[in-house]
Amino acid sequence: MDEETQLQQIQLLKSTNDDHGGVIVELDDDHNPMDSTTFLSILRPSISHWKHLGKRGVWVKLPIHLVNLVETLVKEGFWYHHAEPKYLMLVHWIPESGSTIPANASHRVGVGALVVNEKREILVVQEKSGRYQGTGFWKFPTGVVDQGEDICVAAIREVKEETGVDSKFVEILAFSQSHKTFFEKSDLYFVCLMRPLSLDIQIQETEIEAAQWMPFDEYAAQPLIDKHELLKVIKDIYLAKVDKQYSGFTPISTRSDLSEEKTHLYVNVGDMKRCNSI
Amino acid sequence: MDEETQLQQIQLLKSTNDDHGGVIVELDDDHNPMDSTTFLSILRPSISHWKHLGKRGVWVKLPIHLVNLVETLVKEGFWYHHAEPKYLMLVHWIPESGSTIPANASHRVGVGALVVNEKREILVVQEKSGRYQGTGFWKFPTGVVDQGEDICVAAIREVKEETGVDSKFVEILAFSQSHKTFFEKSDLYFVCLMRPLSLDIQIQETEIEAAQWMPFDEYAAQPLIDKHELLKVIKDIYLAKVDKQYSGFTPISTRSDLSEEKTHLYVNVGDMKRCNSI
Repeated sequence: MDEETQLQQIQLLKSTNDDHGGVIVELDDDHNPMDSTTFLSILRPSISHWKHLGKRGVWVKLPIHLVNLVETLVKEGFWYHHAEPKYLMLVHWIPESGSTIPANASHRVGVGALVVNEKREILVVQEKSGRYQGTGFWKFPTGVVDQGEDICVAAIREVKEETGVDSKFVEILAFSQSHKTFFEKSDLYFVCLMRPLSLDIQIQETEIEAAQWMPFDEYAAQPLIDKHELLKVIKDIYLAKVDKQYSGFTPISTRSDLSEEKTHLYVNVGDMKRCNSI
Repeated sequence: MDEETQLQQIQLLKSTNDDHGGVIVELDDDHNPMDSTTFLSILRPSISHWKHLGKRGVWVKLPIHLVNLVETLVKEGFWYHHAEPKYLMLVHWIPESGSTIPANASHRVGVGALVVNEKREILVVQEKSGRYQGTGFWKFPTGVVDQGEDICVAAIREVKEETGVDSKFVEILAFSQSHKTFFEKSDLYFVCLMRPLSLDIQIQETEIEAAQWMPFDEYAAQPLIDKHELLKVIKDIYLAKVDKQYSGFTPISTRSDLSEEKTHLYVNVGDMKRCNSI
């Protein structure tokens, strides 16, 4: 490496192009600490360089140990895009025209799992905390879908974690959307029908007070259910389902675009099969 | 106000309790700038005070103009929870036991709108940018659901914005989930069937190159559709739908819990009506 190349590498931030005419600067978790004056002396010529190249959005992913550089970026016209525990993503828009920077993730996703065995018993739990704590109410297992996790996988994982029961995903019976459940964010909540693959219960001591197989009619007769519109409709949907009168959505594997990337499409497969389309 | 009360207010950060044994500190957008040394002299006794009270999570919402305080918070044991353009939310966990801080929003949500008129013509557009730019492919309108926005409202808004056509939401035909579409975040994409309430097209000049009503068979005959698994299945679902063989999910208004807060539950209403449950 000659002296000039080395100089170039020192003076400009290393970036990769994104698919929308912008650049991404990813500083690694093990990036050496840097004082803000040195950083500024590299940042400014880098922005000039990208501007000269006609670049639009500039993304900087900053690991939390480089928190001393956040203020420098904001003073140079960057704003916050999103954050995770270990990093902050900042963004800057170079052109004079309005920014077309895409919005941040807006929804948290949850699952509720109706695991019903052949004796029409439903798997229910009492939680150690949360809104039903101390009410004696038996609820079906619920939990949060992680980013990168399939809904149908999350439902199986939550049932296993809370009760030790292995299960198989059958279909999504319904889903709800609600708003401002967590600061400004919205929630999507998927009600999943599952079949058990094992019956022995082993509760998660930290979160679960008790778990059991309960006759569905006994679950449905709990007074709280008729007072709670969402739980009442879910109960009615399940009853329609066992009478073979209700179809939910089942995942089929497909490709979301012309790439090889697989995605799950949730479809009323029963209806599609009736007309021989899939 | 006597002198002692005043002193108390100066030395501790103003906080409100959350529902999980923690506290929230919200510094407003018009909060006076503060140097980090002063802030630290208030932050430390505040944390001691909350610890003494047995508090668990401490949330600090910091507007972007107070960016100079981010480093102070991180050095005192806070980490990033989430961020929006104008603020950063940091969090700290006081107890020795493991944190139960809830995860950040994990999903972006999109809609695709199949608006089909009585002559079985579908509303299609060509976009000025994006993956189909320059291919001549006619696609149905798509867009992003904002946080706080109902899916069924977003579909109507996107159709109106892109084409000027007023429409009515009918049902969700299917939805897909895919991962790592935008950094580490996942996507949920809802395919919505709509009925037009007006037919005149007025395109959005900034994003849309052209729009038209196209006979559905002509849309479906575009070579790209059979190469693109997701679009092919959506086409097949629509054909099953017009043959009255397919039921999707329709929103019904319900309450998500014992509060008065309304939420939309998306249900196979056709099947539920057949068994007189709703």
